[in-house]
Amino acid sequence: MKVLVLHGPNLNLLGRREPEIYGTKTLDQLNEEIEALASQLGLEVEFFQSNHEGVLIDRIQQAAGTYSWIVFNPGAFSHYSYALRDAIAGAGVPTIEVHLSNIQAREEFRRHSVIAPVCAGQISGFGAASYFLALYAIFERAGGVQAQNELTGF
Amino acid sequence: MKVLVLHGPNLNLLGRREPEIYGTKTLDQLNEEIEALASQLGLEVEFFQSNHEGVLIDRIQQAAGTYSWIVFNPGAFSHYSYALRDAIAGAGVPTIEVHLSNIQAREEFRRHSVIAPVCAGQISGFGAASYFLALYAIFERAGGVQAQNELTGF
Amino acid sequence: MKVLVLHGPNLNLLGRREPEIYGTKTLDQLNEEIEALASQLGLEVEFFQSNHEGVLIDRIQQAAGTYSWIVFNPGAFSHYSYALRDAIAGAGVPTIEVHLSNIQAREEFRRHSVIAPVCAGQISGFGAASYFLALYAIFERAGGVQAQNELTGF
Amino acid sequence: MKVLVLHGPNLNLLGRREPEIYGTKTLDQLNEEIEALASQLGLEVEFFQSNHEGVLIDRIQQAAGTYSWIVFNPGAFSHYSYALRDAIAGAGVPTIEVHLSNIQAREEFRRHSVIAPVCAGQISGFGAASYFLALYAIFERAGGVQAQNELTGF
Amino acid sequence: MKVLVLHGPNLNLLGRREPEIYGTKTLDQLNEEIEALASQLGLEVEFFQSNHEGVLIDRIQQAAGTYSWIVFNPGAFSHYSYALRDAIAGAGVPTIEVHLSNIQAREEFRRHSVIAPVCAGQISGFGAASYFLALYAIFERAGGVQAQNELTGF
Amino acid sequence: MKVLVLHGPNLNLLGRREPEIYGTKTLDQLNEEIEALASQLGLEVEFFQSNHEGVLIDRIQQAAGTYSWIVFNPGAFSHYSYALRDAIAGAGVPTIEVHLSNIQAREEFRRHSVIAPVCAGQISGFGAASYFLALYAIFERAGGVQAQNELTGF
Amino acid sequence: MKVLVLHGPNLNLLGRREPEIYGTKTLDQLNEEIEALASQLGLEVEFFQSNHEGVLIDRIQQAAGTYSWIVFNPGAFSHYSYALRDAIAGAGVPTIEVHLSNIQAREEFRRHSVIAPVCAGQISGFGAASYFLALYAIFERAGGVQAQNELTGF
Amino acid sequence: MKVLVLHGPNLNLLGRREPEIYGTKTLDQLNEEIEALASQLGLEVEFFQSNHEGVLIDRIQQAAGTYSWIVFNPGAFSHYSYALRDAIAGAGVPTIEVHLSNIQAREEFRRHSVIAPVCAGQISGFGAASYFLALYAIFERAGGVQAQNELTGF
Amino acid sequence: MKVLVLHGPNLNLLGRREPEIYGTKTLDQLNEEIEALASQLGLEVEFFQSNHEGVLIDRIQQAAGTYSWIVFNPGAFSHYSYALRDAIAGAGVPTIEVHLSNIQAREEFRRHSVIAPVCAGQISGFGAASYFLALYAIFERAGGVQAQNELTGF
Amino acid sequence: MKVLVLHGPNLNLLGRREPEIYGTKTLDQLNEEIEALASQLGLEVEFFQSNHEGVLIDRIQQAAGTYSWIVFNPGAFSHYSYALRDAIAGAGVPTIEVHLSNIQAREEFRRHSVIAPVCAGQISGFGAASYFLALYAIFERAGGVQAQNELTGF
Amino acid sequence: MKVLVLHGPNLNLLGRREPEIYGTKTLDQLNEEIEALASQLGLEVEFFQSNHEGVLIDRIQQAAGTYSWIVFNPGAFSHYSYALRDAIAGAGVPTIEVHLSNIQAREEFRRHSVIAPVCAGQISGFGAASYFLALYAIFERAGGVQAQNELTGF
Amino acid sequence: MKVLVLHGPNLNLLGRREPEIYGTKTLDQLNEEIEALASQLGLEVEFFQSNHEGVLIDRIQQAAGTYSWIVFNPGAFSHYSYALRDAIAGAGVPTIEVHLSNIQAREEFRRHSVIAPVCAGQISGFGAASYFLALYAIFERAGGVQAQNELTGF
Repeated sequence: MKVLVLHGPNLNLLGRREPEIYGTKTLDQLNEEIEALASQLGLEVEFFQSNHEGVLIDRIQQAAGTYSWIVFNPGAFSHYSYALRDAIAGAGVPTIEVHLSNIQAREEFRRHSVIAPVCAGQISGFGAASYFLALYAIFERAGGVQAQNELTGF
Repeated sequence: MKVLVLHGPNLNLLGRREPEIYGTKTLDQLNEEIEALASQLGLEVEFFQSNHEGVLIDRIQQAAGTYSWIVFNPGAFSHYSYALRDAIAGAGVPTIEVHLSNIQAREEFRRHSVIAPVCAGQISGFGAASYFLALYAIFERAGGVQAQNELTGF
Repeated sequence: MKVLVLHGPNLNLLGRREPEIYGTKTLDQLNEEIEALASQLGLEVEFFQSNHEGVLIDRIQQAAGTYSWIVFNPGAFSHYSYALRDAIAGAGVPTIEVHLSNIQAREEFRRHSVIAPVCAGQISGFGAASYFLALYAIFERAGGVQAQNELTGF
Repeated sequence: MKVLVLHGPNLNLLGRREPEIYGTKTLDQLNEEIEALASQLGLEVEFFQSNHEGVLIDRIQQAAGTYSWIVFNPGAFSHYSYALRDAIAGAGVPTIEVHLSNIQAREEFRRHSVIAPVCAGQISGFGAASYFLALYAIFERAGGVQAQNELTGF
Repeated sequence: MKVLVLHGPNLNLLGRREPEIYGTKTLDQLNEEIEALASQLGLEVEFFQSNHEGVLIDRIQQAAGTYSWIVFNPGAFSHYSYALRDAIAGAGVPTIEVHLSNIQAREEFRRHSVIAPVCAGQISGFGAASYFLALYAIFERAGGVQAQNELTGF
Repeated sequence: MKVLVLHGPNLNLLGRREPEIYGTKTLDQLNEEIEALASQLGLEVEFFQSNHEGVLIDRIQQAAGTYSWIVFNPGAFSHYSYALRDAIAGAGVPTIEVHLSNIQAREEFRRHSVIAPVCAGQISGFGAASYFLALYAIFERAGGVQAQNELTGF
Repeated sequence: MKVLVLHGPNLNLLGRREPEIYGTKTLDQLNEEIEALASQLGLEVEFFQSNHEGVLIDRIQQAAGTYSWIVFNPGAFSHYSYALRDAIAGAGVPTIEVHLSNIQAREEFRRHSVIAPVCAGQISGFGAASYFLALYAIFERAGGVQAQNELTGF
Repeated sequence: MKVLVLHGPNLNLLGRREPEIYGTKTLDQLNEEIEALASQLGLEVEFFQSNHEGVLIDRIQQAAGTYSWIVFNPGAFSHYSYALRDAIAGAGVPTIEVHLSNIQAREEFRRHSVIAPVCAGQISGFGAASYFLALYAIFERAGGVQAQNELTGF
Repeated sequence: MKVLVLHGPNLNLLGRREPEIYGTKTLDQLNEEIEALASQLGLEVEFFQSNHEGVLIDRIQQAAGTYSWIVFNPGAFSHYSYALRDAIAGAGVPTIEVHLSNIQAREEFRRHSVIAPVCAGQISGFGAASYFLALYAIFERAGGVQAQNELTGF
Repeated sequence: MKVLVLHGPNLNLLGRREPEIYGTKTLDQLNEEIEALASQLGLEVEFFQSNHEGVLIDRIQQAAGTYSWIVFNPGAFSHYSYALRDAIAGAGVPTIEVHLSNIQAREEFRRHSVIAPVCAGQISGFGAASYFLALYAIFERAGGVQAQNELTGF
Repeated sequence: MKVLVLHGPNLNLLGRREPEIYGTKTLDQLNEEIEALASQLGLEVEFFQSNHEGVLIDRIQQAAGTYSWIVFNPGAFSHYSYALRDAIAGAGVPTIEVHLSNIQAREEFRRHSVIAPVCAGQISGFGAASYFLALYAIFERAGGVQAQNELTGF
Repeated sequence: MKVLVLHGPNLNLLGRREPEIYGTKTLDQLNEEIEALASQLGLEVEFFQSNHEGVLIDRIQQAAGTYSWIVFNPGAFSHYSYALRDAIAGAGVPTIEVHLSNIQAREEFRRHSVIAPVCAGQISGFGAASYFLALYAIFERAGGVQAQNELTGF
C-alpha cells in the first residue's frame, strides 16, 4: 500500500522558517520520522515537495493508479488554489489534508481551506504528528484496530 | 494518564441518527473501541455524553487536575457555543476537537467552529477513527514515536 | 396518533410576558384549548415546556417511536440552536415549527430560523391559532379533507 | 365573508411543473378542494391567477371593500416584488402568505420574503394544505374554536 | 429593595480562569465585596451562578415580584443567547448587564451583545467594580445624589 | 486627583435636544451635579465641551500630566472619529467612555464605538448617572471600597 | 415643451393608501395641481399611471421624440427594476426621479434606487411638491432665473 | 425542429438604444440575420419580444410541446426575475441565455444572472453573433460536427 | 421668513474645483442668484460656508429660533458626519439637503447620506438649481401653489 | 488566421476526471474535433495545455503577433488568477473564455470569473461545443454570415 | 519649487505618543531632517500640523498656486475624511500620501485609505524616511536620475 | 550590500503592456536605470523576473544569506498569493513592496495586498521611481541622511 506524502510551498524551509510557529525540525528529519512510522504500519511512503502549484497538480494527477492515499500539506495554497482542489477531485485518490499549526487559531485568512471539501478529512495543530495521525488514519481505514493488533502485536 | 472523552449533543443517538452520515455503530460500541485502543496505548479513558451545554461546561471545569487531556466532539455546539469555548480556555486542560464527518464538506454553517481556536488541534472526517487519531495524538505528545516503540514493541 | 406539543424557552411566562405581543392567555389555558381541538380531531396530545436547550433535545430524542408528530415552538432557540436542529433531524419525527407572533415582521434576528430547514413546515403570526393550525395540518396529512368530513360530520 | 385566493407566477403550471417539488395536482383541482373546505367553513372564495406582477397589483388594490381576507401565494415574486408589498400594505386587506413547498428548506434566495413583513402570517411547506390552513386561520380569527364548534358541530 | 446578582457561565472559575484577564479574586470574594457595598447603600442582594442557560432563564423568570433589579454578567451567553434576552424582556425586572473586562477591546465576537438591547444599561471593563457601579446605578435611580447624601452622610 | 470631564458634539444642547431621549437637564445642571458628587469623592473636576473634533483632540493631548483620568462622552464622534481614538491612545490618560442613552438599544450605527477599544471602560444608558458611575469607577480604582469607607464615613 | 409625468405602482391608490405617509390627496387632485403649475410655467404635461413594469417601459420608450422631459415616481420599482433603468438610459429622454416621502428616512430597502444613476436628478420628501419642484427644475433648465423673471413677472 | 427566439425588455430599441454598447443594427435586422442562418442550419425560428415580465413568462410556459429550444436574451430581467427562472425550470424546454454585450465587463449588478443556473448554457459578448452561436449550439446538439458536414458540405 | 443657506466643505472652491463636475460658477455668483430668487419669493436668506465640521455644528445649533429653514449642502460630510446629523435633529430647524451633482450616479461612497434621514427632503443633481428648488420647496410649504399665484402673479 | 486554443489546469485529465460533469471524451479527441472544424472554417489552430499558471502566462504573452485570437478555458484559474487576467489584457490578443460545464449552475465559487472582464466574450455549458462555438464566433467576426455563405456553400 | 509638508492629527505628539510604533523623534526633529534633505535637493519646504480636519482643508485649498507638491500624512483622517479627499482633488496640487508605520500591517481599519485614490502615490512603513522618500519622488519627477547626477555630483 | 530586485508576472511585458498605465519604458531600460542609481548609492543589485509564482517563491527562499534586502513588485500576485507572503515571512529578508501605478486608484481588487503585512513598507504610484525610492529607503536605513551626505557630497 503506497502513500504519497506531498509538502506544499515553503515547507522546504522547515526548521528555519518562523520556528516559533513551525518548530526547528527540518523537512528531511520530518520525512525520516514519517518513514519510520510508515514502515512499522506496513505502509510504503514517497515524499515530494514543491513551491509550484502546477508541479503539485501534475504530481497529484500522476498519483492515480500508483498510490492508494495522498497525505497533503498544501501550505498557503489551502486558502486559494481551486486548481489543486480540482486536481484532487479529478485524480480520485483519497487525500488527507494536514497542517503543522492549528490553522483555526491563526490569521483570519488561514481559517478557511478551499481544498478541504474534496478531502477525506483534515488534521491540524499537532506539529509533525499531524502527518503521523494521517498515517494512522490510513492504517485504520485499511483494517481498523483489530488488524493493527495482529500486525503490530499491540 | 487520564483522558476525558466528551460527546456533545445528539451523539447518544449514534447508530440511529442519519446513518448515511454517521454510520450504524452505537455510542457504546464506539466507546468500547476507543477503550480498547486506549488500553493498548497505556491511556485511561472516561466517557461522558450530554445534550446539555451547561452540563458539558460543568464537566470541563471539573476536568482540571484530574485529566491530562480532553477529546471533545462538541457536535452542533461547535458552531455557536462561546460558553464552551470559554470553559475550555478556562479549565486549562489541553483539548482536541473531533468530528465524525468531514465538517468542511457539509452545510455552510458546519464549516466554522468557534471552539477550534482554543483547542490543541482538530480532526474531522474519519468516522470513529477521528477519536482513535486523537488518542494517537495524545500518545504521541507524551513521548513520540520512540516511546511508542518501546511501549508496544513497534 | 400521538402528538408532542413542545414549548421552548419563556413560553411558561405566557400571559405575563410582553402581552402586547403574546396576548394574555396563559400556557395552561393555551394547552387546554389545544387539547380540546385535538380530541375533536381524534389526536392525542402531550405537553412539555422547558427553558433548557438540553432538556428539549432529550425530549425530542425520546419522542421517536412514541409520537407521530411534534409541534414545536422553539422560541428564541429558533435563531441559533443548531443542536436542536440536529436533534430533530436525528429523531426522525416529523416536526412543525410554530410561532405565536409573526417572526418575519419583528426584529431582524427573529426573521431567520436555523431549525426550519429540517421541519415539515412553519406557521407563524396567528397567536394561539398557530398551534391549532399545526394540529389541522397533522390531521390533514393523516387523511385530508375527505377523512375530516367523515370524522367530524363536516 | 369573502376571501380572495391569489395565485402568483407559474402556479398555472401546477401539476406539470417540477412535480417532485409541487406534486401532480392541477390548479383547478387545488381550487376545487379549497372551495369545498371554504363552503364547510362558511367562507366564500374567489380565485385568480396571473404571471404578471402588475395584474396582481391591480387585483389586490381592487380587493379593498370586497374581500375580508386575501390568501396569497406570490411564488417567486415573494423574493423581490416590493411593489406587491406596497400594494398589500396600501389595500388594507389582511393577507396570509402561503407556499406549497417549505421555502426555508430550498435555495438561499427562496428563504427571504419581502412580502411577509406586511402580511398577517405565513404558512409554508404543507402542499395544498398550506391554503387549507390559511382558511382555518381566517375562520379562527372570525370567532375561534368555540365559534367553530357551534358552526360545524366539532 | 432586593437585587439579584446573576453570574453566568465560567464565572465560578473566577480567580483561577485566565487571571491575566479576570484577576485573582474568587467569586466568593467578589460576592462578599458586593454584599458589603450593598448593605452600605441599603440594598439587599442575593447571588446566583450557573453554567446552564436554562437554569439562568428559570431564575430570571422567578425574579419578577421578588427583586427590583437584576445585575447580570451573562459571560459568553451575551453573544448568542436570544433566549436569555427574551427572558429578561419577559420578566420585566430592570436589568443591568455587567462585564469584568472591556468587551469592546477584546476578540471580535465579544464586542456584540444580543442581550444589551433589552437592558437598562451596560457596564464593562472595570473588573469587580463593574458590579459595584451597577449597585450605584440602582441606588441612584432610587433617589439620586441627594438621597445618597442623607443616607450615607456624604 | 484631577479629572477632565469632556463633552462632545451637541451636548451643549442638552435639555433642549430631543428631550425624550436625553432628558430636560441642561449641561450646566449636569456639570453641577457631577461637581457635587466629585467633591464628595475627593476628586477635582474640570469641564469642557466642544462640537469640534480638532478642539477635542487638542484638549485630550494637553490632558497628559495634568489629569489622572478623562471621562468622555464623545457623542456621535464615537462612531467614526479614529483621530480621537488615536488622541486617547497617544495621550496616555486613562479614559472612560460614557453615554447618556443606551447606545446598544438605538439605531444600528450607534451600537459600534471606534473609541471604546482604547478606553478603560464604557458606561451607557443611565442618563446623567452614567457620568456619576464613571466618577465612582475612578474613585474605586484609586482605593476601592475600603478607601471609600474611610473617606466618606460609609 | 412637453413633459410626461409618470406614476409607478400603487400611486393610483393615493389618498387611500397609508395616508399617514402619503397624505389624503388623490392622484387626480395631484395631477390637477401639477397641471395648474405647468400651465403657469408654460409647460405641457401628460399623465400616465401603471402598476405594470412592462407598461411603464413601453411608455418610456415611446416618449423619445415626443417629450422633452420625464418626471417619474417609480414607487417600489425604484429598488429593483433594472429593466426600467435600461429603458430610461435607452430612451434618451432626460428624467427626474421623484418621491413623495423621504425615502432615506424609511425602511432600509427604500434607501437605494437602482434607477437614480441614469436620471438627471432626484427629489424626495416634499409630498406633492416633489413633483412641483421637478417642474421648476425643468423650467429652470430651459432658461434659468432670468427667463423666469421675464416670463412670470417675478 | 422549432426554436423560439425570445427578446427581453428594451431589445425593441435595438439600434437606437446606447449604440456605443449595443450597435446600430435594429431588432428586425437582427431577426432577419438569425432567420437566414437558421434556415441554412435547417432550423425553424419564431421571434417574440416583450418588455413585460409576465408576457415573457406566459410565452415560455406555452413553449412546452411546440419548441425544442428557447434562445433567450432576458436583458435586465437576468438580474432579478426569479419568476422567469421558475418559468424556464417549469416549462422544461432547454434554454440558452444570450447577451449582446459582455455582461462580465460592465456594472457590478450585470455580472450575476439569476436565470443562468436553470439554462443549458450562457453566451455573452459577441453582439448579434451571440444569437448565431446559440443556433450553432442547438444545431450541434442535434447531430454534431459529422451531421453538419453532410448538411452543409463542410 | 428667514432661511439659512449652509455650504459645507470645499464649496468655497466652487468654479475652480473640478469644473467638469461642479461647473464654473463661483460661490459668490451662486449666492447672488439664490438671493435674487429668494427676494422674489419673499424669503430672507443668509449664507455661511465652512470647511470645519464643528463650525457647521455650531451654526446649526444657533439657527434655532432665528431661522425657519436650513438649506444645507453638506458636501463630503454627508457620507460620515453623524455629528452633523445629531446637530440637525437636535436643533429642530427643518432642513433640506441639497447636492449640485447627482450623488447617486457617482462613486459608491457618495450614494449614501447619513444626514438625509433627519432632513425634510433631499434634492440632488440640478447644479445651482438644486438650491433654487429648495427655496421653492420652502415657499410652497409656506402656502402652496395658491399663495404663489397671489404673490408672483403666476 | 491563427488561433491559439489554451487549456488550463486539469483539462489534461479530460475523459477520466469526474466524467459525470466533464464527459468521457479525452483532450486529444477534443482537440481533433476542434481541428476538424477549424480547417472547415479556414482557421489554423494550435493547442496548448498546462497545469502551471506561469506557463500559461508565458504562452499568452508570446501569442502577441503570432495569433489573431485565443480560445481559453482557464479552468479553476478563472476564479482567482488576476495574473492571467493581466497577461490577457497586456498581450492584446482578443480572447474568448470557454467552459465545458455551465459554471453558473455549480458551486458558488465557480460563478465568478476574474478573467471574463478582459475577454471579448464568454461561452459556458455546451461541453466540447463550447470550443466549437468559440471558433464560429471568430469565424463570424472575420466576415459574418455573408462570408460564411460563400466559404461553406451554406 | 515649493513643497508643503502637511502633518495630520496627533502627529504633534510625535516622540511621546506610542513610541514603540512611532519612535522617539519629535515633530520638530523630523521637520529639521526633512528641511536638511530638501535644501540638498533644491526644494523649498514649509511645515504645517493640525488636529483639525477643517484647518487642513483650508490649508490644502490655499496651496493652489503657491506650492508645486504636497506631502501629506493624514494620520487617522486617512480612514474616513472624504472632505480631505475632495479638498485634494479640488485644489489640483499633486499630493503624496505618507505614513510612518506600515498601515497594511496594523489594525483592519488602518488598511484602507479613502484619500489614496486622489493622490499621486502612497509611501508607508519607513518611519521618518517615508517623508524623505516623498521628497526624492518629487525631486525625481522634476528631472529624474540624470538631473540628480548633475545637481548632486552623484 | 546586495539587493535583489524581483519583478512579478507580466512585468517582462513592460513598455508594450497597457502603456497608458505602465509607460513605454521596457524592463531592460528600467533595470539599467535602477542599476545606475544603485551604483551611485553603493548598492549591488541583481534582477529577476518571472511569471511563475513557484519560481518567485524559490528565489525568495534562496535570497536568505545572500541579499540584505528584496525590492519586490509582485504584480497581480499581490492580491491573492498567500504562498508568496509565507515565503517572505519565512526567508527573513526585509522586503519592500513596490508598484508602478497607484494601486489604490484602480479597480477594487487591486486596492488590497495580501503581501504588504509581512513587508517593511509599501511604495506605489511613482512609475519607475517607485523602485528608485525603494533603493533610497534601503540606503537611508543603512545610515540615514548623515551617511548620505558623506557618501554623495550632498
